[in-house]
Amino acid sequence: MSPNAASPLSLAAASGADIPALMDGIGRRARAAARALGLAPAAKKDEALRAMAAEIRAAAPAILSANAADMADGEKAGLAGSFLDRLRLDGARLEAIAAAVEDIAALADPVGRVLATFERPNGLRIERVATPLGVVGIIFESRPNVTADAGALCVKAGNAAILRAGSDSLRTSSLIADAMRRGLASAGLPEDGIIMVPVKDRAAVGEMLKGLSGAIDVIVPRGGKSLVERVQTEARVPVFAHLEGIVHVYVHAPADLDLARRLVVNAKMRRTGICGAAETLLVDRACAQTHLKPLVTALIEAGCAVRGDEAARAADPRVTAASEADWSTEYLDAIISVRLVDSLDAAIAHIEAYGSHHTDCIVTDDGAAAERFLAEVDSAIVLHNASTQFADGGEFGFGAEIGIATGRMHARGPVGVEQLTSFKYRVRGTGQTRG
Amino acid sequence: MSPNAASPLSLAAASGADIPALMDGIGRRARAAARALGLAPAAKKDEALRAMAAEIRAAAPAILSANAADMADGEKAGLAGSFLDRLRLDGARLEAIAAAVEDIAALADPVGRVLATFERPNGLRIERVATPLGVVGIIFESRPNVTADAGALCVKAGNAAILRAGSDSLRTSSLIADAMRRGLASAGLPEDGIIMVPVKDRAAVGEMLKGLSGAIDVIVPRGGKSLVERVQTEARVPVFAHLEGIVHVYVHAPADLDLARRLVVNAKMRRTGICGAAETLLVDRACAQTHLKPLVTALIEAGCAVRGDEAARAADPRVTAASEADWSTEYLDAIISVRLVDSLDAAIAHIEAYGSHHTDCIVTDDGAAAERFLAEVDSAIVLHNASTQFADGGEFGFGAEIGIATGRMHARGPVGVEQLTSFKYRVRGTGQTRG
Repeated sequence: MSPNAASPLSLAAASGADIPALMDGIGRRARAAARALGLAPAAKKDEALRAMAAEIRAAAPAILSANAADMADGEKAGLAGSFLDRLRLDGARLEAIAAAVEDIAALADPVGRVLATFERPNGLRIERVATPLGVVGIIFESRPNVTADAGALCVKAGNAAILRAGSDSLRTSSLIADAMRRGLASAGLPEDGIIMVPVKDRAAVGEMLKGLSGAIDVIVPRGGKSLVERVQTEARVPVFAHLEGIVHVYVHAPADLDLARRLVVNAKMRRTGICGAAETLLVDRACAQTHLKPLVTALIEAGCAVRGDEAARAADPRVTAASEADWSTEYLDAIISVRLVDSLDAAIAHIEAYGSHHTDCIVTDDGAAAERFLAEVDSAIVLHNASTQFADGGEFGFGAEIGIATGRMHARGPVGVEQLTSFKYRVRGTGQTRG
Repeated sequence: MSPNAASPLSLAAASGADIPALMDGIGRRARAAARALGLAPAAKKDEALRAMAAEIRAAAPAILSANAADMADGEKAGLAGSFLDRLRLDGARLEAIAAAVEDIAALADPVGRVLATFERPNGLRIERVATPLGVVGIIFESRPNVTADAGALCVKAGNAAILRAGSDSLRTSSLIADAMRRGLASAGLPEDGIIMVPVKDRAAVGEMLKGLSGAIDVIVPRGGKSLVERVQTEARVPVFAHLEGIVHVYVHAPADLDLARRLVVNAKMRRTGICGAAETLLVDRACAQTHLKPLVTALIEAGCAVRGDEAARAADPRVTAASEADWSTEYLDAIISVRLVDSLDAAIAHIEAYGSHHTDCIVTDDGAAAERFLAEVDSAIVLHNASTQFADGGEFGFGAEIGIATGRMHARGPVGVEQLTSFKYRVRGTGQTRG
């Protein structure tokens, strides 16, 4: 679509838009709003968040009818069923979106937390105190709830959010963003704390990735691998993201078989399409005799296709041969790769070689082995005797997450309100000069 | 210099080097060393750091003679006196370098710190625990001490360091790096934890800024504005840096005149060439009558040239007229700009408009005004009644700093060992599955 193509949306700003100029203006508005939101007291931000939830509920008929129109267009365009399911709203899903915003209002204010204090021998009192990050750019695909989750998390942390919705969900997402802007305004905060990019033109994404002349501090992509890959490759600003979740469960001897079976089946099959779903099962040779066949059988009986090495294939004839590529494949489906490993070290080496530093788990009764695994596996989340499907900000108690990050800079793992803050140093003196 | 130009150094690796291949190999060696350093216990790292100090001392004759050769070449090339002074080593300066490495050994281990713990209703125990960042690329100019400071800080935090010295100090810096590598090896740690880029070719910097195929996690430039600007513009990996320190001292009414005078003169004149030196003095109109003239006079008498607005010029005939450009100029010299402001709000607005978010100070007896200034000025370091020259990792008690950052991502203010770490989540369960 060319920058001047007529938008199917009746968005005034979008008609005949000069995309760089439009996006530059959005950046400047967001930056100004971020300054005001960054100084807003907790009570004001929470008042705005509760008002957003009320505005979303009040706008339910309009949002649901916009969503029906987005769905109809999506069906006409032949979008995949899984895509349409993520796009689809109903009364219950919209109520859950509003309630999630209220949950974020109820969280403790992440801004102003004193992260460290130290008094120097010369009497200077130094505090490291949490401050907002600034302006967060969120680029997402179909899920309309990202508008509310991401916008609310940003406002809670004193940041402004620039949201770029997938073109197939823009009508739905725009009305949710409008409701949230009304919520900001009703609390006396700048409505530009949440700005939805009003054009479908993909050039807008390119402008965001360049950072809007310094207006955007960090980009969060929420969507499939191709979106995340584009963002990680092109972005000239920091990115909070994970490209994929090549998640391992390692069953180490001694591990209780029943516990291992429950964990492996849950980690793989509870939901296969999420980033915390297991993709590879590693079984230690020391317990292969007793554990391999029952684990493989349990997975197959739960509806999972198993691709394995020779040992796995010997355990059950329904196991097909895994290729080298399987060890680095994120299936996001009812498929798992299974391999024997010779030791804890071999398991760690496999995970470091093939994994994606997202989430990995050891199942064992051996506390020392578990601690070594937790220390040596370099992943955002490492678990002992718990399902990898807990890799989620809500399950971590963060209220909600704006995404999961596998980078090592600033944020790692589920990105909640605390990770949406920066910090500064406050130094209180009594006239100290430096000698 | 072309990639194949003969190097004046007798470094085997440098002759006829294929720079991308050379740098790629350095990246892979550093990444492998980082993995080992990241898992090294504190005692091993500290043993290596103490051995580094001993090796630097033992190599003093060779290092000082290499430095004499670098100095002679620099003088022949007509390098500036300030540049040569930063390059110059003597016995005392080298001893200070070795002692600083021992000071870093004595710091608490930043790796493994438990940053947060929470237990979930389902019994999961979750810890956020500090981990190394990975591989740090340091690009610096003349100061040989950066080799030791940066290398030691990286090793302390379990990271590997790739060091790129200015070509005029490469002989000196290489010998210091060699001594540190011997220190690593003597403690049984990989000597590739510290790698000095062995070529002067500037293409090596370009390769580092591209990240060496993902091997470099963060770049730290240490040097003048043109170096930092190039790094910030070209780097495809995160950067810890400040471009400049446009540092303000705001004298608010009521402020004790004697205290204000001592702070202003120290903030500007103790050392004028450091990033925490004051560049602009803002005087509140409410105390101009009593404070402006004495402050301006004290600065002039201390040897400082004053450029001011009309009020400042009226206070002392030696004040010259400030232009609009003065308010955003980092002099790094005995020059200051002076302006009256109408209020605390006007002072904050001036600082936000012209400052560089580095370090800013309010001088006042009014605690409420001080707290507003500390909250509302969006700078890495904000001070009340203390000299801005305290903007320094050593003065903050960090032992040493690898630099000062003004970005809001990951690190801000003095970057010490804690900021050279990342974190991950350790989750301990008893068989929990997600419902």
